Amino acid sequence: MDANNTEAVGRRLKSIEGHVRGVRRMVDEGAYCIDVVNQIVAIERALKKVSALVLDDHLHSCVANAMQSRDPAERERVVGELMQVYQAAGRG
Amino acid sequence: MDANNTEAVGRRLKSIEGHVRGVRRMVDEGAYCIDVVNQIVAIERALKKVSALVLDDHLHSCVANAMQSRDPAERERVVGELMQVYQAAGRG
Amino acid sequence: MDANNTEAVGRRLKSIEGHVRGVRRMVDEGAYCIDVVNQIVAIERALKKVSALVLDDHLHSCVANAMQSRDPAERERVVGELMQVYQAAGRG
Amino acid sequence: MDANNTEAVGRRLKSIEGHVRGVRRMVDEGAYCIDVVNQIVAIERALKKVSALVLDDHLHSCVANAMQSRDPAERERVVGELMQVYQAAGRG
Repeated sequence: MDANNTEAVGRRLKSIEGHVRGVRRMVDEGAYCIDVVNQIVAIERALKKVSALVLDDHLHSCVANAMQSRDPAERERVVGELMQVYQAAGRG
Repeated sequence: MDANNTEAVGRRLKSIEGHVRGVRRMVDEGAYCIDVVNQIVAIERALKKVSALVLDDHLHSCVANAMQSRDPAERERVVGELMQVYQAAGRG
Repeated sequence: MDANNTEAVGRRLKSIEGHVRGVRRMVDEGAYCIDVVNQIVAIERALKKVSALVLDDHLHSCVANAMQSRDPAERERVVGELMQVYQAAGRG
Repeated sequence: MDANNTEAVGRRLKSIEGHVRGVRRMVDEGAYCIDVVNQIVAIERALKKVSALVLDDHLHSCVANAMQSRDPAERERVVGELMQVYQAAGRG
């Protein structure tokens, strides 16, 4: 990843870490179940935004390079990875 | 899409159409709610497989071509589409 | 389901069936992959709305009744079904 | 939540917090994008298991109690919350 994206992704992950810690505290203090579930859903959304950032960088760098490679196995490898990520994302 | 994939995708969509019709009949006949919901989840999974097939074809043809294009706007367009599809898939 | 919901669910499923048929035609006519994928995502969203309708009805009728039952096995059965549906929905 | 579940949920959240911290370190050290995305998907799955645990407890306690309540508004409130959680989960 380029330096700006590395920093942005790092910052978001740090904030997610704090969010998870906050939910842990809520649970300890006996928060209402639905409030806990809603916070967990919010964390999942924040994670999806991080992986979109990472993937966007990936498409602009590694994929763009690999697609220009003359080695068909290399192009195939990159396409296979994208499909695997797409299917994993679909299943959540 | 290449001819084989077009046929495979068409065949799967036809089967999904029949599945939807079957669920409609179940509902008319007063099926148990949970059975209806489970059938709908099965249809969603079948649709995800179809879109994975279509996307796989897309990555091997359009994306591969676009990435070799010298026009940066064309490469950007294709990457943007992939990101949009990825995010839509994540949200289901 | 009550009669109104049965009708609403049937109507939506009929429209989804038509939507799937339309996508099949698009594929036959060589539509652009991303357009096909986007239509499939739209169908998945429509299906999610149908299953939400069905589940809402289920919670108001079967679940409400089962929870008032004196038979703990019956209550457990209904809770187990809801958990299974919830987890299947999460995985899409 | 009952004490056992509170402890299990707390333990899982603590492990997820460590997982997020680990991914942050990977990013700092310049890990390959796809490896980062795959770790994020693994964290999302772990979060889904936590929310399933919380929801299961909720169905056995709060929902079971509310459904036995004579107050229709109270029953409606609990059903509405479940629907909202189900729909949020579906959208991930």
